[in-house]
Amino acid sequence: MLRQFLRMLAVQTSGEGFTDLTGALNTEIQASGLTLGTATLVCLHTSCSLTINENADPRVLQDLTSFARALVPQEGIVPAGAAGPRQPYRHADEGPDDMPSHIRTALTATSLSLSFQEGSLVLGTWQAVYLWEHRRLGQRRRLSLHLIGS
Amino acid sequence: MLRQFLRMLAVQTSGEGFTDLTGALNTEIQASGLTLGTATLVCLHTSCSLTINENADPRVLQDLTSFARALVPQEGIVPAGAAGPRQPYRHADEGPDDMPSHIRTALTATSLSLSFQEGSLVLGTWQAVYLWEHRRLGQRRRLSLHLIGS
Amino acid sequence: MLRQFLRMLAVQTSGEGFTDLTGALNTEIQASGLTLGTATLVCLHTSCSLTINENADPRVLQDLTSFARALVPQEGIVPAGAAGPRQPYRHADEGPDDMPSHIRTALTATSLSLSFQEGSLVLGTWQAVYLWEHRRLGQRRRLSLHLIGS
Repeated sequence: MLRQFLRMLAVQTSGEGFTDLTGALNTEIQASGLTLGTATLVCLHTSCSLTINENADPRVLQDLTSFARALVPQEGIVPAGAAGPRQPYRHADEGPDDMPSHIRTALTATSLSLSFQEGSLVLGTWQAVYLWEHRRLGQRRRLSLHLIGS
Repeated sequence: MLRQFLRMLAVQTSGEGFTDLTGALNTEIQASGLTLGTATLVCLHTSCSLTINENADPRVLQDLTSFARALVPQEGIVPAGAAGPRQPYRHADEGPDDMPSHIRTALTATSLSLSFQEGSLVLGTWQAVYLWEHRRLGQRRRLSLHLIGS
Repeated sequence: MLRQFLRMLAVQTSGEGFTDLTGALNTEIQASGLTLGTATLVCLHTSCSLTINENADPRVLQDLTSFARALVPQEGIVPAGAAGPRQPYRHADEGPDDMPSHIRTALTATSLSLSFQEGSLVLGTWQAVYLWEHRRLGQRRRLSLHLIGS
């Protein structure tokens, strides 16, 4: 008989960068008493997102940050292949890091569905689940975690 | 006891841009009689996609459109950092907006899994679920919505 | 009464490019005996990813490859709109295609949730589910497939 649990998680970020959620997710799975099932994680914001990436070499996360800054700069939009002036973002009320954060969210993931087995997420050896904060300042972030299993 | 419902949705788009699906999804959830569960939404096309983004300031959606046009231009592919000639798309039978639409689909989401509670999607205050039409002309688009819950 | 099955899949890739998983997924669904449900597919690596895209014209996949190489070049990071020197990747121990593979993974999907009905995935006419290998050399890749249904 399958059962379900919906949990709300809160994470305090410390500005642009990555927070490893893997341990907190496994703690929630174990607290549920379910041993086999699916875990659906949703980030309840539009200026931070979810990603699964490398958990071993911190330089991977540094390169991801550099790439995101280069691809979606704070200064505005510039067409691929053009060297001309940037087009400023129209949405800038909350500062220059606001619209780039929405774009980076659109290019990454807001929801992830994973499996768990024996009370832990089924992940590859080098995988971790990260909250990717795109704003420059730390924020309190909320996520929903939905477990379905037995 | 968990139950499931698979529904097919149809949306008429009016060309490149965003259609807010949030209300239609909540209507389907309420019609199912389920109060708590997961909703898996899949876009059944390869030239439009799904995204969760800001629901308050329409300039966010305008900036997302401008960014997508700059990142994946109709005129072809140009290497990052290069100012040289673009490489035309090989796949162009359906017009210059066809292959850019496939690329933008690959960079965003084709499937989203969300939670619902008390008959409504669990979303952040500023989040809406959008169908992102990448073709220049309006299209009739189909989506599947799978509800599992109780 | 809903039931669940967790399966592990293995795929041998032949280097950068796409492996169509649609047939293998339908085979697993049919072997489960379930006729209606959801299929959650997770790629257990950080240098290959999942995407749903066009299944008819092989030039679409060629253009996706060209775009990914242009957007995330092996030579390093260059700011949008800049023609200056590239910033080399910090993470390069496994070769020049390693960090670009992590970035391309972050920009596409690591998990997909789909519906199935009558023993087959619910997909659009032109959709296929692909494993997108980002490394230059072929690799043995593992995926988890979680079926919940009846």
